Amino acid sequence: MSAKPCTLCETDGGEVIFRHPLFRVIDALDTNYPGFLRVVWNAHVREFSELTAEQRALCMDVVVCLEQFVLAEFKADKANLATLGNVVPHVHWHVIPRFTDDPHFPAPVWAALPEGAMLSPRQAVILESQSQWKPRLAAMLGQRFPF
Amino acid sequence: MSAKPCTLCETDGGEVIFRHPLFRVIDALDTNYPGFLRVVWNAHVREFSELTAEQRALCMDVVVCLEQFVLAEFKADKANLATLGNVVPHVHWHVIPRFTDDPHFPAPVWAALPEGAMLSPRQAVILESQSQWKPRLAAMLGQRFPF
Repeated sequence: MSAKPCTLCETDGGEVIFRHPLFRVIDALDTNYPGFLRVVWNAHVREFSELTAEQRALCMDVVVCLEQFVLAEFKADKANLATLGNVVPHVHWHVIPRFTDDPHFPAPVWAALPEGAMLSPRQAVILESQSQWKPRLAAMLGQRFPF
Repeated sequence: MSAKPCTLCETDGGEVIFRHPLFRVIDALDTNYPGFLRVVWNAHVREFSELTAEQRALCMDVVVCLEQFVLAEFKADKANLATLGNVVPHVHWHVIPRFTDDPHFPAPVWAALPEGAMLSPRQAVILESQSQWKPRLAAMLGQRFPF
């Protein structure tokens, strides 16, 4: 718990795709990574290990569900999962669809952007088709994580 | 499964601290991040979601155990967890103790190294005291994950 205001307590942190009493799934709206999703734990918790075993299991079930979604729906070449929180120490997981021709591949998305890096054509499709896959993802999450 | 040889199938990938039939815990030997640990799944599996639910639970229990260790033992200011695998697509988790005065903070460790970046004094202590904390960590993992 920090005395400083927390961005993820005060705002959704992105475009909400699915809202659950314990977490939300958002589109991170990363211009270099269409389909970059985040699972944000609703309560302000600093470290993943501070969640209870049951909460961690639920959180990872959601992360895994998103990983499977980006691999199946976007045909990503690789999924990247991370929880860092150095800037916003409020538990949130990054789920990033990676393509062998995306702006940083095979470097992590946090590496310096190579000069002339461009969206992969497959990433452009994710952006263009968001009005189709977002409702599908929301429906799937609603079925998988009822409340 | 790839036709290319896999570094994590052919080598331990670092200095083994604890070896379990299903996974190993290694010191990543990252010069900028003493105490950077990895959980490497022994079998060649590409994506985290390809593990069974039981295997994923075990794997995350180990990751969480390491996170708790780096927070308690190293008094890290933040833990970072990630599984990327773009270069070596064989499931392995990074557990990184972060300090507000470490080489990249608050940026991810994969960002460009700021000019003149230096080890935090607290990171130097981790390096110097490895002969003490490594046996403690190994013993703790042996108790927590018997086989």
